[in-house]
Amino acid sequence: MREVAILGVGQIPVREHWELSLRDLAIIAGREAMKDAGIEKADAIYVGNMTSGSINQQRHLGALVADFMGQRSAEAVKMEAACGSAGSAMRQGILAVASGELERVLVIGVEKMTETSGKEITAALAGAADADFEAIHGVSFVGLNALVMRRYMHEYGLQHRDFAPFALNAHANGAKNPNALFQSPITLRQYENGRIVADPITLYDASPIGDGAAALLLVPAEHAPEAVRVAGSASATDTLGIHDRTDPIKLEGAETSAMRAYAQAGIRPQDVDLFELHDAFSIMAALSLEACGFADPGKGVAMAQAGDITPNGRIPISTMGGLKARGHPVGATGLYQLAEATLQLRDMAGEAQIEDARIGMTQNIGGSGATVVTHILRRP
Amino acid sequence: MREVAILGVGQIPVREHWELSLRDLAIIAGREAMKDAGIEKADAIYVGNMTSGSINQQRHLGALVADFMGQRSAEAVKMEAACGSAGSAMRQGILAVASGELERVLVIGVEKMTETSGKEITAALAGAADADFEAIHGVSFVGLNALVMRRYMHEYGLQHRDFAPFALNAHANGAKNPNALFQSPITLRQYENGRIVADPITLYDASPIGDGAAALLLVPAEHAPEAVRVAGSASATDTLGIHDRTDPIKLEGAETSAMRAYAQAGIRPQDVDLFELHDAFSIMAALSLEACGFADPGKGVAMAQAGDITPNGRIPISTMGGLKARGHPVGATGLYQLAEATLQLRDMAGEAQIEDARIGMTQNIGGSGATVVTHILRRP
Repeated sequence: MREVAILGVGQIPVREHWELSLRDLAIIAGREAMKDAGIEKADAIYVGNMTSGSINQQRHLGALVADFMGQRSAEAVKMEAACGSAGSAMRQGILAVASGELERVLVIGVEKMTETSGKEITAALAGAADADFEAIHGVSFVGLNALVMRRYMHEYGLQHRDFAPFALNAHANGAKNPNALFQSPITLRQYENGRIVADPITLYDASPIGDGAAALLLVPAEHAPEAVRVAGSASATDTLGIHDRTDPIKLEGAETSAMRAYAQAGIRPQDVDLFELHDAFSIMAALSLEACGFADPGKGVAMAQAGDITPNGRIPISTMGGLKARGHPVGATGLYQLAEATLQLRDMAGEAQIEDARIGMTQNIGGSGATVVTHILRRP
Repeated sequence: MREVAILGVGQIPVREHWELSLRDLAIIAGREAMKDAGIEKADAIYVGNMTSGSINQQRHLGALVADFMGQRSAEAVKMEAACGSAGSAMRQGILAVASGELERVLVIGVEKMTETSGKEITAALAGAADADFEAIHGVSFVGLNALVMRRYMHEYGLQHRDFAPFALNAHANGAKNPNALFQSPITLRQYENGRIVADPITLYDASPIGDGAAALLLVPAEHAPEAVRVAGSASATDTLGIHDRTDPIKLEGAETSAMRAYAQAGIRPQDVDLFELHDAFSIMAALSLEACGFADPGKGVAMAQAGDITPNGRIPISTMGGLKARGHPVGATGLYQLAEATLQLRDMAGEAQIEDARIGMTQNIGGSGATVVTHILRRP
């Protein structure tokens, strides 16, 4: 297996892009990544996307993007794993380059979500859960996460306000990222007064959807001595339904995925300099820290309260805003995380730069932890 | 790059499976492939599927299938490329095993289409075309193929009845396949009296949708000396919209895809013993034969009329019924083709067995030729 490097990075700010279609978003990010890499022709284009089939009436996204990017004849396919779609596209891109058969693989995550009704979006996102055994009961995706958060609070004697550090850190970091949807820090008072979305989840515990796209151009590391390396890449699944888990407040898939990635990279959690985790909800940030070995079970919140997750803390998370402030265009998110980690390891993260970052980790989650894709990147 | 072999095959007959859900279909085929391979644990499960997001409200199919197959923790993702979804899943499975990282990859194609209205299916299938520049005008997918067929007839001075050999061959072959949806031969008179679907396409020119699933278990060839080998695997794209092509009756993507696969396998078209082509419509069968080098442009129909495509002909096609008679559960079709070719090369095709078949080729097409995935298999 040959080593893979990230030669190009592209992204478009997460916004309500009323003037740009699904294909436009993908093309802008994809072309930027290719330009950044100085490469004009890709062998393959893997597109991560969750909702195009229903929201955009498009079930042939790989070929569409290849065509309109001027990359006709390149092989192309869409990867779907709910909100873990873009991380999955990255995983496939790495395997393709590692195989020795493909030399230049463009991976794009794209989602166009704002041109429809909230009701349709809620229904589409429920497709991340089990349609027959969860969604059919009328529970929304945020509702499922609210149940998990409530259970966690009960189990460890926590109050809603204890989760504030996750939102405060994300918004403070997003303020330093021009591609973030929200670019203002928030106060503790704001957090405490957030309106309820699905009790105990309030507005500041839930990440916002949006339109966006991010892309990376992958090549064999031997051809790109100066490019950021992929040191670990692993995907794992857990039960789709939360009700099927032995422990509903433990992300076993995230643990498996992270352990596989650590083993590949030959590192331990303490070697990681920054962690772009999947903070779709505050509770998911806490559970991710625990599953990946940064905190003991039930201690993810205390870790955040101790300031360990801030840019100068022990393990900075959501360094460019995370899903919470950068925004969560669901099927694109995994590649935003990877693009951000790459910029950090290139010392190109601007005001959000983490000093001396040498190893960056990303974790993209589909559903309530059913698909988990972890990547570990390192400075060359 | 290490060579890949097909160690297990599984499929469920194409039917209206009112008693089986989307997950049931996938599990039955997947388990059969694993049992056939004598393997209990897969490293990865790649699921090809086109319409689950809208028809089955499920946007997290990889994890769902892994979970309910008892393969929790295996990595899993869904691949989507319209009707080329399952071929694309196979392609990714091959790259994954070839990379050296994964040892046992299960690829499943599945589609559950009959539990909804014809109107919803027509809308879903239109997602294979360009949503913004084709479907928006109200043209259905069969309508697009009708335009292509009409153009082809005009260009080469052909009549509708000239296409009869494609339907007659497919139905005669399907009659020998217990997994086929239609198992009765048809007569020329039946073909000529088929009711019009979208002029000039009649009932006997169009493949039927259905519920189905087919699966293969892939391993490194070095571990399976007796298993059918993957000699070539290639995917290519063409413009999504037919109106963007220099020649609307030439499948350039199919040509590129086939030429890449021939080069990998080190063979020429005349070395192929059977060809499972994508006969979603009669016209596509003709165009595929031409694009892959079996017939000169405009001569695909004449070739069929000469009897070259029958089981005893020069290049038998649709040997177990093809899309036309076996049925076309859209996102599963590519793996039915591959399962059938594998059975042929194992001498396990029953009554449909092609004598001395040593090299089998499959070609799975998404949209009107926008995604084309070609595989060449050979007897060990």
